[in-house]
Amino acid sequence: MGQVSLPEQRHETRLDRYLDLYAQRTKGLKASAVRSLFAVANRPEVVSLAGGMPNIGGLPLDQVADEAADLIRRRGPEVLQYGGAQGELPLREQICQVMALEGVQAGPDDVVVSCGSQQALDLITRTFIEPGDVILAEAPSYVGALNTFQSYQAQVVHVAMDQDGLQPEALRQAALSCRASGRRVKFCYTIPNFNNPTGLTQSLERRRRLLEVAAEVDLLLIEDNPYGLLSLDHDPLPALRSFDQERVVYLGSFSKTFAPGLRVGWAVAPHPIKDKLVLAQEAATLCPPVFSQCLVSAYLAGWDWRGQVDRFRQEYRARRAAMLQGLEEHMPEGTTWTRPGGGFFVWLTLPEGLDSQSLLATAVTNRVAYVPGTGFYADGLGTRNIRLSYCFPTPQQIYEGTRRLGEVLTEALDLARTFGLTAPSARPGLPPADQSPTSLPPAPNEV
Amino acid sequence: MGQVSLPEQRHETRLDRYLDLYAQRTKGLKASAVRSLFAVANRPEVVSLAGGMPNIGGLPLDQVADEAADLIRRRGPEVLQYGGAQGELPLREQICQVMALEGVQAGPDDVVVSCGSQQALDLITRTFIEPGDVILAEAPSYVGALNTFQSYQAQVVHVAMDQDGLQPEALRQAALSCRASGRRVKFCYTIPNFNNPTGLTQSLERRRRLLEVAAEVDLLLIEDNPYGLLSLDHDPLPALRSFDQERVVYLGSFSKTFAPGLRVGWAVAPHPIKDKLVLAQEAATLCPPVFSQCLVSAYLAGWDWRGQVDRFRQEYRARRAAMLQGLEEHMPEGTTWTRPGGGFFVWLTLPEGLDSQSLLATAVTNRVAYVPGTGFYADGLGTRNIRLSYCFPTPQQIYEGTRRLGEVLTEALDLARTFGLTAPSARPGLPPADQSPTSLPPAPNEV
Repeated sequence: MGQVSLPEQRHETRLDRYLDLYAQRTKGLKASAVRSLFAVANRPEVVSLAGGMPNIGGLPLDQVADEAADLIRRRGPEVLQYGGAQGELPLREQICQVMALEGVQAGPDDVVVSCGSQQALDLITRTFIEPGDVILAEAPSYVGALNTFQSYQAQVVHVAMDQDGLQPEALRQAALSCRASGRRVKFCYTIPNFNNPTGLTQSLERRRRLLEVAAEVDLLLIEDNPYGLLSLDHDPLPALRSFDQERVVYLGSFSKTFAPGLRVGWAVAPHPIKDKLVLAQEAATLCPPVFSQCLVSAYLAGWDWRGQVDRFRQEYRARRAAMLQGLEEHMPEGTTWTRPGGGFFVWLTLPEGLDSQSLLATAVTNRVAYVPGTGFYADGLGTRNIRLSYCFPTPQQIYEGTRRLGEVLTEALDLARTFGLTAPSARPGLPPADQSPTSLPPAPNEV
Repeated sequence: MGQVSLPEQRHETRLDRYLDLYAQRTKGLKASAVRSLFAVANRPEVVSLAGGMPNIGGLPLDQVADEAADLIRRRGPEVLQYGGAQGELPLREQICQVMALEGVQAGPDDVVVSCGSQQALDLITRTFIEPGDVILAEAPSYVGALNTFQSYQAQVVHVAMDQDGLQPEALRQAALSCRASGRRVKFCYTIPNFNNPTGLTQSLERRRRLLEVAAEVDLLLIEDNPYGLLSLDHDPLPALRSFDQERVVYLGSFSKTFAPGLRVGWAVAPHPIKDKLVLAQEAATLCPPVFSQCLVSAYLAGWDWRGQVDRFRQEYRARRAAMLQGLEEHMPEGTTWTRPGGGFFVWLTLPEGLDSQSLLATAVTNRVAYVPGTGFYADGLGTRNIRLSYCFPTPQQIYEGTRRLGEVLTEALDLARTFGLTAPSARPGLPPADQSPTSLPPAPNEV
């Protein structure tokens, strides 16, 4: 098989007659690594450990099909019509029941439905961010969030994580030092459960401490929680929002527990912020997809969705096991990785001398795809990191994928050792799992 | 029946502890008059001539239900999964066929699918507008567009319309005078067919002239066309985009020809702009609703949708007739209104001395609702105007609604004549239909 060339930034060489008309915010936007990889990942011969697509093959499709048809037959003129910008009331009530599983106490008027939780993130950013405003974000962070933040010209200041998640002292230092230099810190963005990309989770004690620090330095927290219910080893931990209703905006999603193609997510926010989000939703879409909302609502009401989430958990447990076994058997010495308690992702740190971005083309040629680590940092870190996802392929494919990746890394490492380090400036991000994390906060790293 | 109090701006008196954190762009956002009226309009005893909800009761619901169920049964893991940010390819191909009915020649790669055409408008604005940038917009304009423009801190400069739509000379003058004063004009926003709120349509000759002026002053046009296929008296006119592929961004929607609750609209743009829109869509939602797109696609492929649009046209013709007859019979002397050739709306100009905003509560008490004209101007004009929609209620209800409205206006006019003009400063917007429009461009009016 020949060398595969990866998608490049589009149309770089095309003369753009509209260039002088674009807003400044569009200048930094580029196709994300994750999105660009979709085309490659879809080739049947490639094992994609890249995408974060949930494995929804196990859904009760006949039941969902019947619900959809029934909704349209019985309530067509309503479920196919415009709705309110805040979202359908019955669904918002059910969302509160879903969140109660993680200790969140909220009423339907606290909830704003969005077109996937990505859009909730967009509306939050739109509500708070002026160009140059600071967002504190754990490092590494979800590439889609960094992309949204950049589209509003936020400056992302990364805050260190360790095995227990975002470090409270690092958060405090980052907030204080930004403010001391006169910068406006708007909020801190965190994924407490099974962080994308690391798979790491904030411990209970860590959550309490983070909220104490947030109160001490008067900081708003954005808690992004798409994976919370996909806890694989024990019951979900209480959400940050369950401890503090005024200082936490909670973002949730049905994309991982039901179906991403419906695009139904939500935000829970203190009322003044909620009001802003509703107005922003009106300006952005008039209303989130009504039929999608009604279908989610019918599914939650008519199906044992908790049992379904348990079945998803079983499947992901088998996939995680295949990945961890494969890594154990096939990774060259010096490679380290996280052991996630849930969610979709494992985060690799490569041996010194390897660069994950430059190895990607070789990997795809060897029929395995991953996401290089740099996309998850706003500051160029992550060159020695790789995000692997175990959500979509079968356990057998995942195992085979790690074998192919092992070959690529081993060969690259042999080359590097024979001919010298090829990437001497490569900087790893998160400390590898087998090192003690430092308790000292790093200097804030800026975009 | 008691006096009805209308929704006010929400939570004005509540102390908002997050006030210092909000971005400047949120300051001007308020609940739109149209949205606030939803609650009132839904009361069964009120004839709502306010909302722009299409009458979708005539859809082939059994067929749509079957298509939905079939999609999920046969292709569930695909149609319920994430999709590409640009939208599903088969749908984009079908969208090109739909647009061909209005003379638009485009390929699927020119199309970006959005969460309703409102979101296309949002993405366009996000792509081009810095705070303070000028958008030229015909006066009056769609309230939802003005709302989006405001949310990006654009300055809207209105351009006069007459019975043939946006005035080319006024457009030229506005563009030149804004630039002469050093302001950045980013684009001109227009609804060529059955403008919301006036119902007026650009003549063919007018379209050609507008494009000439746009070329002369090097101006990008945003052509918003949700109602084009709902032409009631003759075949649709060619779209602006059919004359110029480089200077026109076209926005379309399935909300009026199929179902708004699916939230499927689109933009057609020159490729450099299209690329920006795709990136903006990634940041905003990752992808537009996939299942909705597939359902629209299946509907277009499996149903005589043109025949269905013809049936919608028949229904709207009857509704328009009921409204125009009712207005003829019930409006007090001095009231004028437009006679739309399609779409959903009639635009009233009240006799001097009446204020449409202050009469609304009385009207709702008298069981008829409308939208006051001021929402459709960025500059406070429209106090003597009313938007009436004939899309949703039955012809009998519409006729009865105009009768009730006639009572309210007649009584208010009697009062005004007895006790003096109550609204001496009320300024009408568009010249009434029975006056010759001035050919002189007005001074640009700013937000």
